[in-house]
Order: sequence, then C-alpha cells, then structure tokens
Amino acid sequence: MIILLDQDGPLAEFEEGFLKNWRTRFPKEVAVEVEQRTQFEIYSDYPERLRDQVVSIYHTPGFFLSLKVVDGAVEAVRKIQELRHELFICTSPLSAFEHCVSEKYLWVEKYFGRDLTRRIILTKDKTLVRGDILIDDKPEITGLVIPSWEHVLFNAPYNRAVSNGRKIITWNNWREILKI
Amino acid sequence: MIILLDQDGPLAEFEEGFLKNWRTRFPKEVAVEVEQRTQFEIYSDYPERLRDQVVSIYHTPGFFLSLKVVDGAVEAVRKIQELRHELFICTSPLSAFEHCVSEKYLWVEKYFGRDLTRRIILTKDKTLVRGDILIDDKPEITGLVIPSWEHVLFNAPYNRAVSNGRKIITWNNWREILKI
Repeated sequence: MIILLDQDGPLAEFEEGFLKNWRTRFPKEVAVEVEQRTQFEIYSDYPERLRDQVVSIYHTPGFFLSLKVVDGAVEAVRKIQELRHELFICTSPLSAFEHCVSEKYLWVEKYFGRDLTRRIILTKDKTLVRGDILIDDKPEITGLVIPSWEHVLFNAPYNRAVSNGRKIITWNNWREILKI
Repeated sequence: MIILLDQDGPLAEFEEGFLKNWRTRFPKEVAVEVEQRTQFEIYSDYPERLRDQVVSIYHTPGFFLSLKVVDGAVEAVRKIQELRHELFICTSPLSAFEHCVSEKYLWVEKYFGRDLTRRIILTKDKTLVRGDILIDDKPEITGLVIPSWEHVLFNAPYNRAVSNGRKIITWNNWREILKI
C-alpha cells in the first residue's frame, strides 16, 4: 500500500505547540484548550479580533521546527516501513511559506532521519497525489480531482463530530484500522 | 488539462547558472559548454575527480535563487493559465534540501508572483502526481507507479538523443506541441 501521512497533527504536535507559544506571547488573552477546539483552523476558534495574533504564532521563524513529535509516531512510522508499505509524508505548506517549508524538512530529519525527507511531498492540493490511504486530521480535503486515496482521519477534537463515517486513527489503533 | 511543469530547465536557467558559477569558482578547471552536455546529471559530464566541486556549486546558498528565468517562460505560463488549463510546478528538491527548498519557492515568487507558489508540488517521485502532461527536461522519469501523465521533454542538449519518440517542447513551439 501507498500510505500518505500528513505532517501537522499525525506527526507534529501543532496544537500543543500553538497553545504553548500563544500563552507565552499573549498571556492576557483567552486561550482555547486543545480538547475544546472545534474548528480545523485555529483562528476560527478564537474571537475575530485576535486573528492576526493567532496567525502570527505559526508565522514565527522557528515555530515549525520547535514542534514536539506525537507520542507513538516514530515507532508507527518505523513499523509501517518494516511492513514494506510505501510511506510518504504529504503536507501542505502555509501560503506564507518562508519559514514553514524548510522547517518542515528539518523537522522530519530531526525526528525521522534524512532518508524520510526524500519522501516528503509538499503540495496544497493533496487530491493530485496518488496513494491508497491518506492519514490526515483535516476534516474536508478538497482539490482539483477525485482522490485515489481513502481519507482516514487522524484523531483530533475538531474532526470527531464531522467524521461522516470515515475511520478515525491514532497511533494506538492504526494496525487495526489499516488492517495491516 | 492538468499540466505539470518542472522548474529547473523549463523555467529556471540551471545550466547557465551552473556554468557561470563554475567558471568563477574553479577558473582553472575544464568547463563543459551547455550545448556540449550529454548527461542529465552535470557531474556525469565532468571528470570523476571533480564531482565534489560540481556538486558544491548547486549546494551553495543563494544558487537556486540566483538563477535566471528562461526566455519566454513567463509569457508561456501566463498564456497557459489564460487558456484555463490547470498548471502546477512539479519539482524535485535536492537531497541536500537546506537551501534548495525555500529558494525554489522564493524564485517562483520572484518571477511568477506569490499566487503560483501555491501551485508548487515538491516531490522526488513525480509518478505519484496526477496530471495530463509533465513537461520536464529529465530524460527518464521513474518512480513507484505508472504515471498518469504523458512526458513531454523540455528541449535540452542532454535529452535530444534519447527522446525515444517523445515530443520535444520549447517556449517557441509549445502551443503546437500541446495542441492548445
């Protein structure tokens, strides 16, 4: 199987990283706990007046590189590769690509080694990438064509209510969900 | 049509950029004129003992960003988009991704504007990307799957002898070759 794996969410702790930086930079503002998040875009869970501040967190140089790795992700990736599946990291850069793009590569190298950086696919349209499975926390993934992959939702508070029958995966249940 | 367009070769003057920097950095060494190039990888056209020096040119920070734009490329890209085709830039980063990755985005922004940076697809395996046409100067493009696209060769001295019946395109004949 060709397994496409999203980076922020399944591998990198984007949510926790955001919240930690948010509290440090804007300690007097409201902060939404990860478990209270209901929308995919963080700024949609914050008051409209805070949108620029929210965005400024993940536009900051070093933000992507500083993210922690999700518990169990390193072991799961190694295991999927041992099982001889073809694993690629399929990730969408921010439109403000300046720091995000190179930091995403550096981050993969830091936690998974240089070999896996050769399997990064950077695209804003994931429907154009061929695969059997896409593991992604984003609830709705749209693009130019009908995807070849089945979208398996990586478990997140903002996608549970909108799973619409899609499987929800974690690094605890992945073998069962993917049936591998 | 979904048209995938390689970056180095069809858009960026990689060959000229290499040669200019090579002559400046290693003025006493042999230099292979662009028209004399016979292999896709530049180091294959140089003596084995010079391989590290050859590679050091395109590993230098600023190299990718400094490349000139190919004559006619800006107008052709604009025209393809006016004709309502879906154009994406489909480019493989160096394994030494450090400067290359972010400079490829900056370069596209510099010559084509920020909107086109949203249509960059970075991947070492282009067979995984869906499209009708891939315009690429690389003679043999292999990967995990059988591509959905037709490979049209962007004219280069090192691919003419190995075109194997594939169409050869330039920014002078593209409308005729693509029949659009």
